[in-house]
Amino acid sequence: MSLNYPAPIQRLIVQLKSLPGVGPRSAERMALWLLSAGRERGGLLADALRAIETEVVMCEDCGFYNEAGQACLLCSNDKRQRHIVCVVEQAADVLRLERSRAYQGQYHVLGGKLSPLDNVTPEDLRMDSLERRVAELPASEVILALGSDVEGEATANYIADLVRPLGVAVTKLAQGMPAGGGLDHVDELTLHHALQGRRAMS
Amino acid sequence: MSLNYPAPIQRLIVQLKSLPGVGPRSAERMALWLLSAGRERGGLLADALRAIETEVVMCEDCGFYNEAGQACLLCSNDKRQRHIVCVVEQAADVLRLERSRAYQGQYHVLGGKLSPLDNVTPEDLRMDSLERRVAELPASEVILALGSDVEGEATANYIADLVRPLGVAVTKLAQGMPAGGGLDHVDELTLHHALQGRRAMS
Repeated sequence: MSLNYPAPIQRLIVQLKSLPGVGPRSAERMALWLLSAGRERGGLLADALRAIETEVVMCEDCGFYNEAGQACLLCSNDKRQRHIVCVVEQAADVLRLERSRAYQGQYHVLGGKLSPLDNVTPEDLRMDSLERRVAELPASEVILALGSDVEGEATANYIADLVRPLGVAVTKLAQGMPAGGGLDHVDELTLHHALQGRRAMS
Repeated sequence: MSLNYPAPIQRLIVQLKSLPGVGPRSAERMALWLLSAGRERGGLLADALRAIETEVVMCEDCGFYNEAGQACLLCSNDKRQRHIVCVVEQAADVLRLERSRAYQGQYHVLGGKLSPLDNVTPEDLRMDSLERRVAELPASEVILALGSDVEGEATANYIADLVRPLGVAVTKLAQGMPAGGGLDHVDELTLHHALQGRRAMS
């Protein structure tokens, strides 16, 4: 049997490796760093992990996260428009849209996108609560702010079929040239979308 | 004030961001993954972090890690040669050398390398214990298995000056072509070293 790290270090490496984007070598480097950086570093991270278990709750309406015991910052904000719902894949997308300052309506975090290959079905996403909210608000428009990959498009089509019978308009984000880049920075499909969606100069 | 995650999530992101190789976006992705992957995932990681605080100790002789209360697997192994000490930067290097099966002597983990720019001085590394061990074993050879970058070379020179007065031979790893690659896969400096260190065919 060849030499290996003591069992507690091996267990830590396994746990770190389970994080998204962390491979075996990164996990090993993180574990050794935590060992050498002083024991309080690992303790701080452990405390922060424990805190999200008890102090963070997901809003049952929009799916964004809030501190336990507090009203949802999004749903309970009276200044936000209540007739538009913007559907996003994950909580981080809400912050990205908020930073754009281009949207003042309600959000709905799906928690992912439909992906048959990864066994993600409509039951795994927050589809039921979306249908319920659109009817209860009631919303007159549902904006689909999903990724433009195959899974994102499939999820958008599924939702459009789901909420159209409720009598709402269903829209999706415009596709085209990203800000600040020339033609040399975009792929052919983006150019295709940008040409198809061309607009008259004002 | 723009919308942000609840404070406990922000604190977790800060802690994750402090890990080596983890930027703000990776930390955010990890935190959201931990929130959505079920609360027990974060708990397992927190437990593993807590365990290394109490269950792992560093060997005061070689600097490798052991389970608390157990003799060092390296220093207490009677089958290992006691007259050679191999100096490495970090604990992971010990495992790499062990996997090569080319070495059966003692190890000494420095815990880093000299780096004036990062304020790493000899006092921050395990230099005193190296000097003491070389005298106590006693060792007849010190092998410097350090990186071939500027800091590694400087550290090697410092150690050579430190232990030569004790009457030991000081060697360093050979530099040359890595296994399994052609001339097109190595840089000019490596080729330079490989030519200078050329050996007669046997």
